[in-house]
This record gives sequence, structure tokens and C-alpha cells, in this order.
Amino acid sequence: MNNFIAEAVSLISEDPADTFFNHESAVRSYCRKFPAIFATARNSILTDINGTSYIDFLSGAGSLNYGHNNPMIKEALLDYLRSDGITHSLDLHTSAKKTFIEAFNRVILGPRALNYRLQFTGPTGANAIEAAMKLARKVTGRTNIVAFSNAFHGMSLGALAASARSAKRAAAGVSLPDITRMPYEGFLGQQVDSLSVLENMLTTPGSGIDLPAAFIVESVQAEGGVNVASPQWLRGLAQLASRHGILLIVDDIQAGCGRTGTFFSFERAGIQPDLVCLAKSISGYGLPMSLVLIRPELDLWQPGEHNGTFRGNNLAFIAAAQALRYWQDRDFMDALGQRSKQIADTLAHWQETWPQLIKAVRGLGMIWGIELPDAPTTQQVSAQAYAGGLIVETCGAQDNVIKLLPPLTIDPQSLDRGLAQLGRALSSAAKK
Amino acid sequence: MNNFIAEAVSLISEDPADTFFNHESAVRSYCRKFPAIFATARNSILTDINGTSYIDFLSGAGSLNYGHNNPMIKEALLDYLRSDGITHSLDLHTSAKKTFIEAFNRVILGPRALNYRLQFTGPTGANAIEAAMKLARKVTGRTNIVAFSNAFHGMSLGALAASARSAKRAAAGVSLPDITRMPYEGFLGQQVDSLSVLENMLTTPGSGIDLPAAFIVESVQAEGGVNVASPQWLRGLAQLASRHGILLIVDDIQAGCGRTGTFFSFERAGIQPDLVCLAKSISGYGLPMSLVLIRPELDLWQPGEHNGTFRGNNLAFIAAAQALRYWQDRDFMDALGQRSKQIADTLAHWQETWPQLIKAVRGLGMIWGIELPDAPTTQQVSAQAYAGGLIVETCGAQDNVIKLLPPLTIDPQSLDRGLAQLGRALSSAAKK
Amino acid sequence: MNNFIAEAVSLISEDPADTFFNHESAVRSYCRKFPAIFATARNSILTDINGTSYIDFLSGAGSLNYGHNNPMIKEALLDYLRSDGITHSLDLHTSAKKTFIEAFNRVILGPRALNYRLQFTGPTGANAIEAAMKLARKVTGRTNIVAFSNAFHGMSLGALAASARSAKRAAAGVSLPDITRMPYEGFLGQQVDSLSVLENMLTTPGSGIDLPAAFIVESVQAEGGVNVASPQWLRGLAQLASRHGILLIVDDIQAGCGRTGTFFSFERAGIQPDLVCLAKSISGYGLPMSLVLIRPELDLWQPGEHNGTFRGNNLAFIAAAQALRYWQDRDFMDALGQRSKQIADTLAHWQETWPQLIKAVRGLGMIWGIELPDAPTTQQVSAQAYAGGLIVETCGAQDNVIKLLPPLTIDPQSLDRGLAQLGRALSSAAKK
Amino acid sequence: MNNFIAEAVSLISEDPADTFFNHESAVRSYCRKFPAIFATARNSILTDINGTSYIDFLSGAGSLNYGHNNPMIKEALLDYLRSDGITHSLDLHTSAKKTFIEAFNRVILGPRALNYRLQFTGPTGANAIEAAMKLARKVTGRTNIVAFSNAFHGMSLGALAASARSAKRAAAGVSLPDITRMPYEGFLGQQVDSLSVLENMLTTPGSGIDLPAAFIVESVQAEGGVNVASPQWLRGLAQLASRHGILLIVDDIQAGCGRTGTFFSFERAGIQPDLVCLAKSISGYGLPMSLVLIRPELDLWQPGEHNGTFRGNNLAFIAAAQALRYWQDRDFMDALGQRSKQIADTLAHWQETWPQLIKAVRGLGMIWGIELPDAPTTQQVSAQAYAGGLIVETCGAQDNVIKLLPPLTIDPQSLDRGLAQLGRALSSAAKK
Repeated sequence: MNNFIAEAVSLISEDPADTFFNHESAVRSYCRKFPAIFATARNSILTDINGTSYIDFLSGAGSLNYGHNNPMIKEALLDYLRSDGITHSLDLHTSAKKTFIEAFNRVILGPRALNYRLQFTGPTGANAIEAAMKLARKVTGRTNIVAFSNAFHGMSLGALAASARSAKRAAAGVSLPDITRMPYEGFLGQQVDSLSVLENMLTTPGSGIDLPAAFIVESVQAEGGVNVASPQWLRGLAQLASRHGILLIVDDIQAGCGRTGTFFSFERAGIQPDLVCLAKSISGYGLPMSLVLIRPELDLWQPGEHNGTFRGNNLAFIAAAQALRYWQDRDFMDALGQRSKQIADTLAHWQETWPQLIKAVRGLGMIWGIELPDAPTTQQVSAQAYAGGLIVETCGAQDNVIKLLPPLTIDPQSLDRGLAQLGRALSSAAKK
Repeated sequence: MNNFIAEAVSLISEDPADTFFNHESAVRSYCRKFPAIFATARNSILTDINGTSYIDFLSGAGSLNYGHNNPMIKEALLDYLRSDGITHSLDLHTSAKKTFIEAFNRVILGPRALNYRLQFTGPTGANAIEAAMKLARKVTGRTNIVAFSNAFHGMSLGALAASARSAKRAAAGVSLPDITRMPYEGFLGQQVDSLSVLENMLTTPGSGIDLPAAFIVESVQAEGGVNVASPQWLRGLAQLASRHGILLIVDDIQAGCGRTGTFFSFERAGIQPDLVCLAKSISGYGLPMSLVLIRPELDLWQPGEHNGTFRGNNLAFIAAAQALRYWQDRDFMDALGQRSKQIADTLAHWQETWPQLIKAVRGLGMIWGIELPDAPTTQQVSAQAYAGGLIVETCGAQDNVIKLLPPLTIDPQSLDRGLAQLGRALSSAAKK
Repeated sequence: MNNFIAEAVSLISEDPADTFFNHESAVRSYCRKFPAIFATARNSILTDINGTSYIDFLSGAGSLNYGHNNPMIKEALLDYLRSDGITHSLDLHTSAKKTFIEAFNRVILGPRALNYRLQFTGPTGANAIEAAMKLARKVTGRTNIVAFSNAFHGMSLGALAASARSAKRAAAGVSLPDITRMPYEGFLGQQVDSLSVLENMLTTPGSGIDLPAAFIVESVQAEGGVNVASPQWLRGLAQLASRHGILLIVDDIQAGCGRTGTFFSFERAGIQPDLVCLAKSISGYGLPMSLVLIRPELDLWQPGEHNGTFRGNNLAFIAAAQALRYWQDRDFMDALGQRSKQIADTLAHWQETWPQLIKAVRGLGMIWGIELPDAPTTQQVSAQAYAGGLIVETCGAQDNVIKLLPPLTIDPQSLDRGLAQLGRALSSAAKK
Repeated sequence: MNNFIAEAVSLISEDPADTFFNHESAVRSYCRKFPAIFATARNSILTDINGTSYIDFLSGAGSLNYGHNNPMIKEALLDYLRSDGITHSLDLHTSAKKTFIEAFNRVILGPRALNYRLQFTGPTGANAIEAAMKLARKVTGRTNIVAFSNAFHGMSLGALAASARSAKRAAAGVSLPDITRMPYEGFLGQQVDSLSVLENMLTTPGSGIDLPAAFIVESVQAEGGVNVASPQWLRGLAQLASRHGILLIVDDIQAGCGRTGTFFSFERAGIQPDLVCLAKSISGYGLPMSLVLIRPELDLWQPGEHNGTFRGNNLAFIAAAQALRYWQDRDFMDALGQRSKQIADTLAHWQETWPQLIKAVRGLGMIWGIELPDAPTTQQVSAQAYAGGLIVETCGAQDNVIKLLPPLTIDPQSLDRGLAQLGRALSSAAKK
């Protein structure tokens, strides 16, 4: 235990909850379910101040795709810090940013035949969403933007307007205008083609919905319950957008950066969105960083029209450039495929084993949802998993979906152990 | 030159602007004025990839109050990184966060007899503003919020509605409702009492302005042209708020964390705002971090009502806790006073020397503005300073104010050299 | 020709269009299609200043259900005017208003077992809509209101937000918030149950649409193309509203007052809306008058919360009370049934005769639409009818529907002549 | 007593309030203060169903400038009705409308060297306001409109947004965006130049208020407390508008049509607004009618962009054309001047007599306000006046202003009697 951690521990009073309970706002939430005080972490293992270890199937809500404190990235960060590399740069040119931009083009965009300008926004996903929505409105001269049922795009007013969760919307305290809500694939049931509803509602004369500047969509809705749009639906949406001069914004904040098995979540559909928002795992180390990818011909920003203090978080650029190396690494890709299969197979087996308990299993790559009958059962499964040393979250509008987001880099043993622990919690629930 | 920097430099093509010009969005702005590619930095000195040095009077727009790569903070960061301390934690309890919260109470709040709950928001100032505005609306059940002329609060829709700059507002592409604009102190000229206008417009029956949930105010408007509200005005505003059940939100993002000579910019007025927003220099190292301070009885948030992925940036917590040590350091305080005086004296002298050029000098502590006749002159002064190795920005609605924001920790020699360089640029301008 | 008309005619310059062209705003529209200068009228016959007569299938867009200058009503008006009965009374009690209220209860509400309070609003349909929407928001404490595709509710901002026609919406020049658009019956095609889409989009958790205060619906969409909702759909909508605590507002401005064959257009569905808006033919003589019917337990208005100068148009009350006598008159009801059948049979025959031309025939009672292939054809039919002395309008989002709205009191010969003239115009179109 | 009135009276039950109390919405307001059931009226005298007479200083809130049932106008109406002149015409050309347009040009616009196009809107003042605001936004491409403290413009959402009264605003239940509120002359006290505040807040860079499409202003605020803008202030406002390309909309609905002593209320300032809204007394007989006057070069409406069913109320056109004859009648003008002086002198005398009671006397022409200490006193004066046979209303944001609006045509004896009755009520109040 190094000095810093020692100091931290020494500061902990007899009632470890006091500091947080007394001094942190009541808005905190994850810590209510997973109340340990965490001290250190490595890849998929978190350790609290008492030395207890936890397997992490939460991964910073998808921000730690390469695991906690990834050693390859860590070395680059230490190196950069020691050398007094620029840390904070607003939007000045820095060598760290240059390295990242060039690596992103070489490793990600080039091989996928994609051509985007990069906008570094304030380092939250919400800020990238706000920027993309502004640009779409500016480019088209329209105000309306279509967002989907069960969408989650962030908490600032513009992003919140596009988000579906009613409690979070109500917290705005004001109307959330200039957004039209449309059903995501499957939301209206299997017998209704939501794309056809969408096209009718948007483009049939008399529909009464103003032609939108853009669609904003997650190709996999994570917070919304792990809803996976089919490639056909995504292609249909892209074609609909194209036919009517509507821009397509893909919010790839949680599903991007490899979470679904490919770098971008939409690769499986073969589409090229007009704007793509990235954040969460883009830095590879959990450091705040956000990006908007912009089709060059849409990059009509005036200098400084959307700015932000922390858009030059160079530690994040350093980490991000390192993290991209994984996408040139065959072994990483192979392991990713194997881990994905390991989860998929286990969940399929569980669904067969406990058909009364498990209403549906949804997912791909390393993002999976297990739909249970109700919120209390789901919360109980999460709580029991935690008691056994596994951190796994719930999601969905009814909080009845267990969401699995292990690091992409998790080792097979830890994955097995985590799944086994989750299996035990499900088994208990199945017996009730 | 360490490996990482070496790699970065080696990647630079013949035309150093290519990467940024070709691949980064046209929205970038600071880099257009200060086009060097920066590589390393220490306290007030930036060095570019060619080894050229620059004195930094910009300080990350106020995010680097303790200088670039502050060595005391750096050691704590290296230590923490090496020990695999938790990097990213959402809002989970971590020892790093605990250390920060306790230090903030012990060093900042306690000695000032302030009692606030801390809300860690998404790590941008705009996100802290959005959270504070939401909470004010929730607590009061009202929608209207009063913001001021020349205010700057951020780029997401809620924060942008409160911001005054017309070009940035226009970029929203939609109406920015639920905000009423009022004149800041002095905006209506010296003969009009803006507080009295404010009180009449808000509280006289028939005013037609809906009673606001809150005032949101910067005690020193930085982006708006370095406008310093008087203690009397701030007290009057606080009293007005109190009389009418309106909350007072102080946006201390740029002026806080010591910039004005005291930790909070409002200490000189002896007021206790209901909500305080901090960001920029709170982490002390330029790392993204934001805070809302909430009077405990107003902390009516439901769990998760306002959340965000990067609200647990533990590197920032580690750095922030270290940075607070300065506020127990008598020598730091003394030096800060001396540097402030050094600037104030120099600027007063300049104003006497070039009365035709310098319309006004405004500021306190380590934030100062020099108002020049027009934007081209001001831009020219900034450009000439840059040519001589000084980075100094312009601000104000008419871009005719030179804004000085050197690190609080700048050594007197560098400050002298920087001021001398600025003096030369002003002298040239005065001759035209 | 009496004195007044004589004077009017004498004033007409050589170019009869001069006055209007030169001095009236370009916003005028009907007069561009039917450019005669009309002077007198009786029941279904309009006569212009040259003595040319026209059969009126437009009836003041449904405001003249009892014909032009209905003699029974006219006598009451003359009597009242001569006796210096109160003309304008704001919302003071007057004997004329008392007479109307009592007659409305006795003749309309009582026999239908309906119990409503009457709110007299500013005498435009739009104002009744604005009042109903305000009250629904006030009663429920919610802001969102659901309106339908192809809806038309009026031109003031609140009513316009609920209206679907894109050109009219665009004329607002501002966003039209706090409305959610949903598909009317049939809008998504016959295979999609729009009620089920509606229920899913409004009430499934995660839908992202804020629970509405109200549905606002026309049971027959007149401007929208004569779309007739089925009784089942209306009942389903009412039940859905009731299940979720959503108020049901029926806009019966154009379809009410007997136009569909019963006094209220929703009688055929057996529903009892929470709020009903009436205007157009309620005064029976084309005089401006509007009403909101309010379920008594929802009448939570504070005095004066929604007012208006002309809400006491006593001439209209006098006329309206007279007009209600028709609803106690068996002969009127029988004739109405016969005229309705006369139209229905003719249109059915035409549809068989010209299947290439007539895409659909829709309607009931005395409101019918004939859907043609496109706007130019439709406009041509209307123009040719006019040339032959018949005034008949077009409607629908694509302006490809001929809308028949003859007076309910039209005599069978005039109806025959009008239909024959329309038949000739259709026959010409069918030949092209 | 003619048949119709007889029938009305015969219908009155033992408790005369029953019908209204039981069947009319709680929103009714004037009738709560003046609860008689009125039956007939002539010029300034109202008579209730019991034969009791009242002098009318309310005049339909300014809609009966030519008195109740003006005999000259009545004859034209009877003549027109008897001859089956067109009653309701949408926006078709009619001889009645033609007569009105030509008379309005000949009698009103021509002699004043004004050149306006006429838009007939839905026949409420609010609808004229909505149309003017839409057109201003359309013509300028801007969304913001400046309205003033104590303004009243109507109850539909667009007009309500521009209105100041807080209770009425709150009834909207939604935000009222796209309006900026500014202080009317004198609102900030006599020592503050509200025009200068206005210009600073709108046009100084950094003001943070989006450049407005228009100012909307009443030259005399009637509902707001009889606040009379000075000619200088009005000219200053017009010049400010002109300098910055902002349109000037004068809402002359209550103050126009002669109420201030000239046809338009702004004639005394010598300004030519871009848009003028007229309603209330324009028809001369209390019949619903509204007009927007549009500078010809601003008449950029597309056909039908703003429409409305009752914009062709031909009885109103007939009455309105007759009423204009007064403006060619020297005797009428002379009498108007004498009646104005009679009021002014009396009020000046009262103010001297009861300086403790009367805080201010404001007005011109035939619109006057007497400011009393508080709402209860004011209400008591109104109630006592009513008990003595005088109908006189209260106004102002604090309901502490007695508003005098007698017909312009009131005979001197009735005016004397009314003033004497009001004097008695004030005298009683002064003794308390």
C-alpha cells in the first residue's frame, strides 16, 4: 500500500459511511447499491479498503472496456506525466492530440473506409450529444430532432430532451422541446414495423410532425434495457434519413469502442452515419474524453461556436492513442470473440434452465441483458451477486434487466467466476 | 525527451498543420491564434515541439491556477497511478473521493464557516451549471432563472440559455427559453442602479416577469470582459434573493479556486450563496472535474436524478486534494498577494502611460482585463505578444479586452517577463 | 335592393378587384378561388353584386349549418336589435345569455344525459381550443397534450401547436412545444392499429413521452381531408384516456352542431368527452360565438383566468337559442337524414362511375369528402364547379379532397342542382 | 318589452342566479361584481330585467365607444339584416367588406397620410395580436419579441406570452417563451429612463438578449392601470425600433378607435407603427371584429397562412363603416373634447380634495384611471358606485385603480351623474 492510499485509509473514521452520507449530495446512486469504499483496481478486479475483491461487470458503465488501470496504457500515462507533457490544452495543438488524431485515422477510420472530421467537445458524452444536435440543426436549418423510446443520451437540457427515462426528464423542471419521440425497433411489438410507423409519421403529408434535422439513435440501447437494433432496421433508418435529407446521428457512447465486438457498434449494419458521438471508453482508461465524428461536408462550425474548457484533456489523448493499438491486435480480437461466446452460451443455457425467471436474453459482443420479471427480483439478483463479490447493474425502463458489461479484456477465469456468481444469484431467484 | 514525446514528434509531417487542418473540426479556435504544437509545460512555461518557450497568461482559461504540471500534485498522481488506485468510479465510494471530500471540508468549508453538500457532476463546468439550475427549479417549483448581461455559463442547452454571447446563442438553432436576462452591475452605465432595475423588474406587481427560481451570477465575469461586481452589489443581490425566496447560484468556475485572491470569489462580499458551481481549477492539474456545492437543506435530489459517467474522475480527486494544501500555506498566500499587486501596479502604470489606448483596467487578484478601443487592436496586441513568446487571450462581448490569467503560482521573474512582453505589444499599438 | 346595398354597389370602381387587391392583405385566400363580390344570401344561395347566384356547398366552412340568413333566426335578431337588447356584455349576466344557457340545457344536454358547465370564450374556435388546453393542463398539472395527424384546431400559438398542416405551422416562426403528435385512425394504414401504437407510445415505461394532460381530437377531421373516426376508435380513445387519467377534449367546432347528422359528432360513439369545444355553427347565423363544455368537476377555473372581450356577443346568443329549436323539430331531423342519404348515394354512384378519378369517398351526415388523385385535378374540379355556379372547397394535407358542406337546411332541389354541377366538373376531370 | 325579452324574463326562476351559477363556468368574472341580469341598453344606460338603470363607465371594456345600440349604426344593421346581406363570409369579397375598406381608407388612413394593408383576423383582439406577432417574426426571421411591464394583449398562448399579469400567465400551465419583458415608461421610477435601459439591454454587445423581431406596445396601457406613455417616449421607441430594424407593433385594441381623443392613440406622438392591431370598438356596436394594419412592404403573408372562420363578420363591417362617419363629424369631435375636459377637471378636483385617498390621476381623452391606496379600497369604491347605479371597473397589477371608460358619445348629463355617483363613493372611502 503506497503512501497515498495509506493516507486515504488512515482518514477513514469509524463509521466509513459518514463522509459520504454527511457531505455528498443525495443524488449519488451507484454507491447505494455497491457501498464498499473502493481503493484499487486492475482489469476486472476492484478491491476495497478492507482488501475485499470484486469482479466488475459494470466497467464504469462501459467506460473501462480495456479494464481498470490497463498496464500498457498506464505506462504511457506515467511516461507522459513524468516528462511534463502538456496536461490541459483547451483546443490548442499538442503533440498528444496529434498522435491521437493520426492514430484514430490510421487504425480506425482508414481501414473502415470512413472519413470524418473530429470534434473534441467537453469531455462528457452529453456534451458530444449537445454538439451533434446543434450541428445538425445548424446544417439543416431545422429545429426538430427525432429520438427514440428507451433512449438515453445524457443529462444536460439538450441531451435530456432526447432521453426517454421519465424520472430523469421530470427533474428538468422545464419543458423539453424540439424533440419528437419515435418507437425503437420492437417497441410497438413484433407485429408492427416501427420503421414504417416512423416514415409515415415523419413524411406523409398531414403528419403534423415537422421534418427533423436528424435522427439520434443508439444502435444498441444500453441504459434502455440492452435493446439491439437489427442491421436491417439500422439500414432502413439510414436509408429513410437519406431519402428525406435527415441527418443520422449515432450515439455510440456506450455501445462503441468495441463493446459490441467491433469498434463501432454500427459496423454490423454497414451504415455510415453523418455524425457519431463517442465518449466513455474512447480514452481507454476511464479518463474523461468525448468526440463527435463529422462527415467533412457537414463540418460547418464557425470557430468557437461550441467550445469547452476540458476538451483538451491530453492524458486522455495519450491513453486513447494507446488503447487503439488493441484494434490492430489479432489476439485481442480473437479473445474478444471467445469471451463474447462464453457469455452468450452461458446466458442461453440459463434461459433454458430458468424459463420462468428469464423473460429474454439480449445482447451481442460484450453487452448483454437478462430480462427478469420485475424490478424487485432484478434488484435482489444484483444485490446477491454483490454480496458474493460481483458488481453487476440493472437497467431498462422498468429496472428489470440485469446488464452485463465486463471489460473486453477480462480473462476467461474471472469471467467464469463472475458468471458463476451471477448464476448463483439467478438460481436463488428462480427458486422463489 | 522521453519516448512518448519522441514518438509524437516523429509523427509530425512536413507541414505541421496538416493533421489538425485536415482532420479536426473547423470549430477549433484557440489554436488559430496560438498555432504552435505544444509538447511540454511546467508552471507558467509552455514549450512547443521545436523547443520554443512561451509564458502562459491564459492558464487553460483559468484551469491551471497552480501552474502546468505542478510538481507536488504530479507526485501524488504518479504515486496513485503506480499503485493502481481506482481511476474511474462513476459515483461509487472511493478512498480518493473520501480524501478529497474530507480535505475540502477541513481546508475550505470549515475555516470559512460554510456548510455545503458536494455534488460531483459530469466533469465540465456546463454540467455543474445544468445541475444547479435543475435543482433550483426542482426546489422552488418555478421555471424562470435570471441570468445577466455578459454572462458565460457553458455550451449545453441549459447553460447556453443562461449565457449572453450572441454568436454562441445563435448556434443553438432553437429557442433558449426559461431564462430572463438582467443587467449586471454597471451594464446600464454608472448612473443607473442595476439592482434597483432588477428588483423592480422582478418583484413589482405587473412586471410581467415570472418570479425566478434563482439568480445565476459570476462575481467576476471573465469571458464577459473581466467585469468585477462590487461587494455591495453582490450583497444587494443576495439580499434581494433572500427577500423574495429566490435562490442564489454563484458560478465560480472561472473566478473561483483562488483566482481572485481568495478561494471563493465571493468571500470579499461576505455572502453565502445557496448553490456554488466549481470546475476548471478545482482539480489543480487541469484534469476534468466539476462540483456543485449545495446548502444541505436544498439537497432534495432523488438518487440518480442527475448523473454522468465521468463524475468519478479519481485522478482529479487526488490532484484536487493535493491542490487544497496551498490554502493552508501562508507563503503561497503571501506570494499570491505580491503577484496580484505586481500586475495591478503595472496595469495602473500602463493606463497612465497610454490613456488613448487603454480605456479601462479592471480586475483583482490574478484576473485582469485591459480594455482597448476595438477588436482589431486587441487582436493585434495578442498576436504581437504571442510572436514574442507570451500567450494572452482576448475577451468581452466586443473582443476588445486583453485578459490576464497567469498561474497563481507564477514566479515573479516570469510574471515580469510576461508583463514586459505585453507592455511592448501595447506600446506598439499605442504608437499607431 | 335596399339603401345599404345600393351604396355598396355604387362604391364599386370599374375594376372590381381594386379595393381588395390594393388594400387587403395578401393573406386572404378563399376569395382568390371564388372572386365574386357577394352581396346577399338566403339559405344555400349566394348572390353577387351582379346578380349572379351560386349554390353554397361551403357554408362558411361549416358555420352556416342552418343556411344563410335563416329566416326564423333573423326575425329573432331583428326583434332583439329593435328592442335595444344588450348587444355586447363581456361576461355580465344578460337575459339573452340566460335564454341560451337554459335552452342549451333543455334541448341539447338534458335529452342526451350530458352534464356540462358552459364557458363562453373569445368567439373564435381557436380561443375555445386555447381555453380547453389551458384547463386540461391546469387540472392535471401536466404540460404535454396529444394531438393527431391531420388535425386542425386553429391559428393562435396554442391551437396551432396542436394543428398538423405544415405550412401553417411554419408561419408561427417559433417552436410549437408541449404537444405530442400521434396517428389518427387509419393514418398508419389499415393494417396498423393506431390506438395500440398510441397506447404503447404513451404508457409503456420507457416510451419517453411525458404523460399527457389530454387528447385533443376531432371525431371527423374536416380540414384534414374528411377523415371519419370509427365509433370503436373513439370509444377506444376515450377508454385509453380514462384508464390513464388523461382528459379527452373533442374539438367539435366543424363537425358539431349537427353537421354529422346528430348535434354532437361523437354521439354515434356513445362517449362523453371531458371537454368539448364548439364554435362555427353554434350561433346558427354565422355570428362569432364559441363555447367550451366542461365536466362540472373539472371546472377549476379561477374567476377571469381566461377572459376575452367578445365572449358576450348577445346577438349570437339570441340566434343560437333560436337555432336550437331545430333539434326539437322532427321534420328537420327527417329532412336532414334524407339530404344525407341523397349525398351519400350520389357519391357512391360517382365512385362507381369514375373509379380512376375517385380514390375514396368519405363522410357521414352532411360532411363528405371526395378524394381525387392530386391537387391540380381537385383544384380544377372546384374551379369548374364555381364557373358553373357552385361553391365547393378542397381540403386535406395534399389538397386533393373535394369537401361538401352544404347547409343542413338545403332544399332537395338546390342540393340536386349543386350535386349535378359538381358531377359535371368531375365528369370533365374523369375524361382527362 | 318585445317578445324576445318577455320570453327571457319569463324564464327567470325564483333565484335569478341559478342558471349562471349552476351552468356557467366558474371562470366568469365581471358578473360577480355587477350581478344584475341586464336586458336592454342605450348609449350609456344599461337596464336590468327588473327595470333598474345603470350608467355605464365600463363600455364593454372599451368596445362600446359609440355607446350601446347606437341608433345610427342600428338602422344600418337592421337594413342590412332585413335585406339578407351576407352575414358570414370567411374571407370572401363582399360588398359590406368593400364598403368598410373604402371608408376606412377615405376617413381614417387618407387624412392621416397613413398607408396600410388591412388584415381581417379572427374577431378577437388576441387573434389580431397573434397575427401581428407571427408576421413580425416571419418578416424579420427572428423569434424574440419585446413586450412591456403591465402589458395586456390577450389570452391565447402567443398573446398571453406578451401579457404581464402573473395570474393569467400562470394559467397557461406551460412556459411562455420567445418574449423579452422590458419596463414601460415610468415603471422603473421617474429617475430612470426606461428607453435607455431598453436600448442598452437590446443593443449593447453582450446584453444577452436576442435582437427582437418587434416591440409590441400599448400607447396607453388600459388593463395595466391606465399608464399613458408620453409622446416623447413613443417617438423614442419608434426611433429605436427603426435604428435597429425592429418592427413596431402598436396594440390599439383598447386605446384606439377614439378612446384617447383621436382615432389612433398614437397620433399624438406623430409616429407610424409598422403594424397596428385594432378590435373592441372598431365595429362600433360591440360586434366581434379585429384588424391588423400592415405597412404594405411588410405584407409578406402567403395566402391562408393565418386564417380564421369568423374573419368575415359582415354585420360588424356594416356597423364599422357607419361608425367611421363620426370621424368626419365636427360636432362629435367637439363634444368628445368637452366630455374629456369634464372628466379631467373633475378628477383633478377630486385629487385636490382627497389627497390621502387618491395617489394619482392618469389619463387622456375618455380613458382615465384613479389610483387608490389598495385593492380593497378600490373594490369598495367600485361596489358602492354599483350600488348607486354606476358601473365602473378596477384595473392595474394591484387592482387599485378605478378605470373610467364611458362611451365617447355619452351625454353631459349622464356623465355628470356618473361622476357624481363615483364622487360619492370616493368621498365615503376618503372618510375611512
